[in-house]
Amino acid sequence: MIYFDHAASSYPKPDSVAHAMHEAVSSYSANPGRGGHKLAERARSVINEARKTIASFFNAPSSKHVWFYQNATMALNQALLGFPFEEGDHVVATKFEHNSIIRPLERLVIEKKITVTYVEPNVDGVISVDAMKKAITNKTRMFAISHASNVTGAIVPLREISLLTKEKQIMLLLDASQTAGTISIDIDRDGIDLLALAGHKSLLGPQGTGVLVTKGDFDLRPLIVGGTGGASESPFQPLQWPERYEAGTMNTPGIAGLLAGIKEVEALGLNHIWQHEQALMRLFISEVQEIENIKMFGPSDLTNRVAVISLSMNNLDSHELAVILDEHYDIAVRAGLHCAPKAHETLETSEKGLVRVSFGPYNTKKEVERLIEALKEISLAF
Amino acid sequence: MIYFDHAASSYPKPDSVAHAMHEAVSSYSANPGRGGHKLAERARSVINEARKTIASFFNAPSSKHVWFYQNATMALNQALLGFPFEEGDHVVATKFEHNSIIRPLERLVIEKKITVTYVEPNVDGVISVDAMKKAITNKTRMFAISHASNVTGAIVPLREISLLTKEKQIMLLLDASQTAGTISIDIDRDGIDLLALAGHKSLLGPQGTGVLVTKGDFDLRPLIVGGTGGASESPFQPLQWPERYEAGTMNTPGIAGLLAGIKEVEALGLNHIWQHEQALMRLFISEVQEIENIKMFGPSDLTNRVAVISLSMNNLDSHELAVILDEHYDIAVRAGLHCAPKAHETLETSEKGLVRVSFGPYNTKKEVERLIEALKEISLAF
Repeated sequence: MIYFDHAASSYPKPDSVAHAMHEAVSSYSANPGRGGHKLAERARSVINEARKTIASFFNAPSSKHVWFYQNATMALNQALLGFPFEEGDHVVATKFEHNSIIRPLERLVIEKKITVTYVEPNVDGVISVDAMKKAITNKTRMFAISHASNVTGAIVPLREISLLTKEKQIMLLLDASQTAGTISIDIDRDGIDLLALAGHKSLLGPQGTGVLVTKGDFDLRPLIVGGTGGASESPFQPLQWPERYEAGTMNTPGIAGLLAGIKEVEALGLNHIWQHEQALMRLFISEVQEIENIKMFGPSDLTNRVAVISLSMNNLDSHELAVILDEHYDIAVRAGLHCAPKAHETLETSEKGLVRVSFGPYNTKKEVERLIEALKEISLAF
Repeated sequence: MIYFDHAASSYPKPDSVAHAMHEAVSSYSANPGRGGHKLAERARSVINEARKTIASFFNAPSSKHVWFYQNATMALNQALLGFPFEEGDHVVATKFEHNSIIRPLERLVIEKKITVTYVEPNVDGVISVDAMKKAITNKTRMFAISHASNVTGAIVPLREISLLTKEKQIMLLLDASQTAGTISIDIDRDGIDLLALAGHKSLLGPQGTGVLVTKGDFDLRPLIVGGTGGASESPFQPLQWPERYEAGTMNTPGIAGLLAGIKEVEALGLNHIWQHEQALMRLFISEVQEIENIKMFGPSDLTNRVAVISLSMNNLDSHELAVILDEHYDIAVRAGLHCAPKAHETLETSEKGLVRVSFGPYNTKKEVERLIEALKEISLAF
């Protein structure tokens, strides 16, 4: 099987990931926490190492600023639903957001009476700083945006946007699900206040892991409350970080796997990964744009996009095309709306959806050529 | 190492658990979901099998009534914070609740102006049906109780309590973290409306897994909203179960591990596990009650408790005793308040905490004898 669904979950994982998880379960599956014993201590020390590694990878102020969740969706919910919005506050997002941002925002619209502007991309599918700037009102409290679209791969102009948010004292929440592990992210340099990560995409960790990295020391309302190991005597969630935001038993094997994944990203090198995936994307786009009845979406400036390409073929339903690729060619892609309905509205592809092709660090030129051949063959048949 | 901290997390896990997780990560780590490909389909089918197995194990109406979370704490938060309480509603809990029930309830007291009664146990440390009955007011909407205390092991009289809740049309939320995988639980027979489970304790699964099983078709407010694979076009969480309650990428390896754990419980047999752990507890209690300066807590009727025994030794701080057992005898127990502050208030052990010993299906008589010997030796020294 040739796997081009990295934007959903990376595959294969480095061997070290499955190995680390196997070891966590078979050698130290005790509950991390205080007042324990050697096994609990070992579990805790692996979680601490993961916290430190992530803090260092994204340049967070300390490992206390790194909070583990089940997925990026939960990290985004913690950031959005936990933020102290007041009635009338305004949030700027874009038409390219995933439902993991849209749905919490729309809940806030109803429950906290905030307002949201979803900024339109320009004709090239790129979000401009000017458009973001125009959306700001005197009530704007937060920008909640994806670093790169999971449909078109378009990367937002992060540093210019963050200069804007700093100037206007607006919080910047960045969903880096499509970029962490591919693009260098430094929350200090890039002016990010809240950074949500998916562990199981380009960070090469397992499913079951999401992270929220914070810059400041502002107080979010914890989404989940319960046992935190320490401060057990209080009926309220402790103030101490990260415990305040991590109630209940941690996913030790998942976090051990994520640690192994990030170490592999560090070993491969972000620059190598970026260059490799860019080369595959360039090859793919240059060949596929010659196929008459295929339409590709996304920015033409390829330096401005991650290796995610969505396409349609004539009148073929996207699911039909994905099934043909899967069944006849053993090639895995993803069809549909990719949980990003406004992106498809903007692209006018809501009805049939698109087929999304996304590359990862272990994909080869040969595999991409095989997909190009397959698309050529299918395009002749339909 | 001799491991007696099963009430926190079971260890060792069956080999099949680590194996299933390794396979999930190395062979099909794609994102489960619709419109996909073979790998995504395989991930989805494993999750579906786990759902069906859990539905059948606890006799839920269907697999749609089984929702996966990161831990039991999150399942309890979903049940409690998601329940449509109104101002003035009343909840009955007990003094033996874990912070995973106390803290969400205390949040509801502040934010939704509900009231809570924490029922006192009788002198023997047992919660009586009479005491539960007396706590009911005409505003009581829910009983939120642990099936067994994680401090004393005391089991609540579930069937009598559920006759009461049925009669009074009160919802019954049961936290089975200390009982699922040890005691037979049937949500229909036992009259449970909402059942919260920890995957990583007696169900022998990995950390990172919790489950909420529901009986009825009432509507809870989803705690987390975001991508759900289907119904992507709506800005709101879909109504469809289980998707409504499971936003974001699922923990496929964790769920595969939990499925393997439950299969092992089924293979061992609940009755065998119960008898085995009871025998170890009886041996332990009968010997330790002869040690002069050790005090044990919990019901004297041993048929009424799971294999969890908390104890104190004279003036020794609980952490000190745990460290001696760990360092000098290589025996793992857990010291402190066990995230159950009201239980320790009731037992008057808040200051020094208690040392908790808890047995699992793979512990042996020899291991228990080793602990008894160790306690005898330590008691002579202090």
